[in-house]
Amino acid sequence: MVRLEPFLLVNFKTYLEATGKRAVDLSKKIEAVGRNSGVKVGVAPQFCDIERVAAGVDIPVFAQHIDSVTPGANTGHVLAESVKAAGADGTLVNHSERPLQLLDIDKSVQLARQTGLTSVVCAGTARLAAAVALSEPDMVAIEPPELIGTGRAVSKENPEIVTESVKRVRSVNPSVSILCGAGISTGEDVYAALKLGTNGILVASGVVKAAKPEEVLASFCEAVLRGK
Amino acid sequence: MVRLEPFLLVNFKTYLEATGKRAVDLSKKIEAVGRNSGVKVGVAPQFCDIERVAAGVDIPVFAQHIDSVTPGANTGHVLAESVKAAGADGTLVNHSERPLQLLDIDKSVQLARQTGLTSVVCAGTARLAAAVALSEPDMVAIEPPELIGTGRAVSKENPEIVTESVKRVRSVNPSVSILCGAGISTGEDVYAALKLGTNGILVASGVVKAAKPEEVLASFCEAVLRGK
Amino acid sequence: MVRLEPFLLVNFKTYLEATGKRAVDLSKKIEAVGRNSGVKVGVAPQFCDIERVAAGVDIPVFAQHIDSVTPGANTGHVLAESVKAAGADGTLVNHSERPLQLLDIDKSVQLARQTGLTSVVCAGTARLAAAVALSEPDMVAIEPPELIGTGRAVSKENPEIVTESVKRVRSVNPSVSILCGAGISTGEDVYAALKLGTNGILVASGVVKAAKPEEVLASFCEAVLRGK
Amino acid sequence: MVRLEPFLLVNFKTYLEATGKRAVDLSKKIEAVGRNSGVKVGVAPQFCDIERVAAGVDIPVFAQHIDSVTPGANTGHVLAESVKAAGADGTLVNHSERPLQLLDIDKSVQLARQTGLTSVVCAGTARLAAAVALSEPDMVAIEPPELIGTGRAVSKENPEIVTESVKRVRSVNPSVSILCGAGISTGEDVYAALKLGTNGILVASGVVKAAKPEEVLASFCEAVLRGK
Repeated sequence: MVRLEPFLLVNFKTYLEATGKRAVDLSKKIEAVGRNSGVKVGVAPQFCDIERVAAGVDIPVFAQHIDSVTPGANTGHVLAESVKAAGADGTLVNHSERPLQLLDIDKSVQLARQTGLTSVVCAGTARLAAAVALSEPDMVAIEPPELIGTGRAVSKENPEIVTESVKRVRSVNPSVSILCGAGISTGEDVYAALKLGTNGILVASGVVKAAKPEEVLASFCEAVLRGK
Repeated sequence: MVRLEPFLLVNFKTYLEATGKRAVDLSKKIEAVGRNSGVKVGVAPQFCDIERVAAGVDIPVFAQHIDSVTPGANTGHVLAESVKAAGADGTLVNHSERPLQLLDIDKSVQLARQTGLTSVVCAGTARLAAAVALSEPDMVAIEPPELIGTGRAVSKENPEIVTESVKRVRSVNPSVSILCGAGISTGEDVYAALKLGTNGILVASGVVKAAKPEEVLASFCEAVLRGK
Repeated sequence: MVRLEPFLLVNFKTYLEATGKRAVDLSKKIEAVGRNSGVKVGVAPQFCDIERVAAGVDIPVFAQHIDSVTPGANTGHVLAESVKAAGADGTLVNHSERPLQLLDIDKSVQLARQTGLTSVVCAGTARLAAAVALSEPDMVAIEPPELIGTGRAVSKENPEIVTESVKRVRSVNPSVSILCGAGISTGEDVYAALKLGTNGILVASGVVKAAKPEEVLASFCEAVLRGK
Repeated sequence: MVRLEPFLLVNFKTYLEATGKRAVDLSKKIEAVGRNSGVKVGVAPQFCDIERVAAGVDIPVFAQHIDSVTPGANTGHVLAESVKAAGADGTLVNHSERPLQLLDIDKSVQLARQTGLTSVVCAGTARLAAAVALSEPDMVAIEPPELIGTGRAVSKENPEIVTESVKRVRSVNPSVSILCGAGISTGEDVYAALKLGTNGILVASGVVKAAKPEEVLASFCEAVLRGK
């Protein structure tokens, strides 16, 4: 894949503001901000919305999760091939709201690679970020669960965890991209994150639940350009 | 919803033969067989395929699972509203390959109802079929896990479990529709199931993995007409 | 087993006040209150404490959970035979803090019966209480999760759920004992529970975390005698 | 704690041959073999048997699992303090039959340390062995799940996974002890394991299900002395 750096990935979670047609509308706004600024942006809609989002925009589309299953009798599971066939370019793995057993994290990264999906593995601490980096995903995302959705940005509230994560991840895997997330809501938060050595951010409510998501994201993109 | 009786529901599981565009192709074949025979048929594709399947055919489309979550911060979960927005008419709940905690079964049925989705709750024994019937889903599906995918039909191998299920379910819930499944592969299996008092069948590999799915399903539909 | 009615069962959870030797001390106090009042009382200590508690007192001892596994390669699981061999007389099943898949509830009740353990299956709503009563456990315990640990007693705050549970449970299983729990902290709460048609209570923090557990339990026993 | 190297740890799983009084009997046999040979040996009985085993023998006793919970309202969970109070010296973590989410592995190791329990974290591949070594447990145990219980020893069937594990674990954590397991059934298997750079073995059915466990274990101890 083309290396996505610096990268702003917007996780739609199961917010109604980003469900169904509204997922497509929001994705188009995000695409426009990316195009205007020249910053790489992506979206992670719900499974059922991947196809229409991927058909509607020309930016990277991520699943929020895949199951570590291969084709077969797995009713109700999310097959990597299915996500890929719908047009996804990548997938989140082990988000704190969808935590996985250690073995399944590793399997999911391998399944993503085999299927041609970019993998972004989430971890809540510096130590665990290094642990998942050993599975050689494309990206690692540091997200301290206690800050998710708070509006208090990890890059401001707990810069140590970001620098420590960067250091530990780099010591075991020099080439993986490093995102950070949790509480990111202003351009300053994004700027701080990049200055701490990360390659981008993972954001959700800060954009999705904003009155004007495109304006918030535009301020993030400006910060990225400033932080380069 | 319109009452679906007798009903043949085809579960696509995560079979590659029924993933992506092949999910749409298979659904069209199933739709054609249903239209030609006049028998009610439906499909349960993977999450990522719901939208294109629902856009491509005019038969009931079911999700294979929903999570018992409401809109919000639930990365990687399957929201009932999302399934509905993609065009689904219903959802399976508690399939033996995606078993749920008791409370989540009940919540899922309620979420399905609130969202306008027809619920089909699976159970592996007569006693558990009655237990889930108490949550007042639209349909209950009896599927002894030990027969799933074997080609040995529950209606032939273990007719007692079907009659016992019908009896127990009816004793606590006279109005719920009753499907049966597991190992169904011939018209005779379908005929036997209806004669045992069920209102239809839930089938997967027997149709999806068949060399000519439309011929297998056509034989099922003939059996339904004979069994009426 | 001897029918335990009316019955006061004290769940020790993982409270430090009821761990190790303190589990034995508390059990002895509970035994004394039961003996003095003539009311049937029991305790549910942690797995590691079952043996010493069972060796130290002559009242029914319950495990807090069993896994639905049979002897074999199940590292880290709780085998019914192991619980029994340690001296337990029964087990809780499906407590809201240790919820089970529907099939595992049913299996656990059967394993308990085969092993000679009295089963107490918990459920959070009237409907689910009836559902688990279909598995024919020895007792059902109604515990609305939202009231657990609050000190606001289910029998006072939500008497309807208790009467509805009793009605629904009785309609599918006339012989099962019915306990109720959540927020029980005074004799009045216990008296109210019995008057609503239950056969006893399941209590935890109300006794375990009390400054003088024996006094609280004594007031419960008085209420039981009054409520008979 | 005293460093346990080389170390032979016998996991009792939920085998009836090692449940209740038979857990104590087997532990005494194991203790005798250890004393006679001078090799460090330990046992991992079921939760309910920890206390009587710890009271009956003077060798290290391990729990098979702890939950990553702190004291409080956690019905049915295994509290580290409870395991410790029963006399355990350590605990297995993340056995392939009781796999944990990544975050819970890390929390369990920390809880073990805080409670004074020696932690042995299991992993099925070299990469995952390194990942869990980052949490700085006392020991890591490599156990490829596909060989567990087969009688085909990992140290003979797949020596590469053992050497690769040792190499990878050492690269991120030079001081952790390394056990290996799965299929170990003869002294030769044990000797091979030590020669591959491990510090001991984790064995279950090879000893527990043997006609004469003490003889099998004695042959293991001889191999350890030879391999030193």
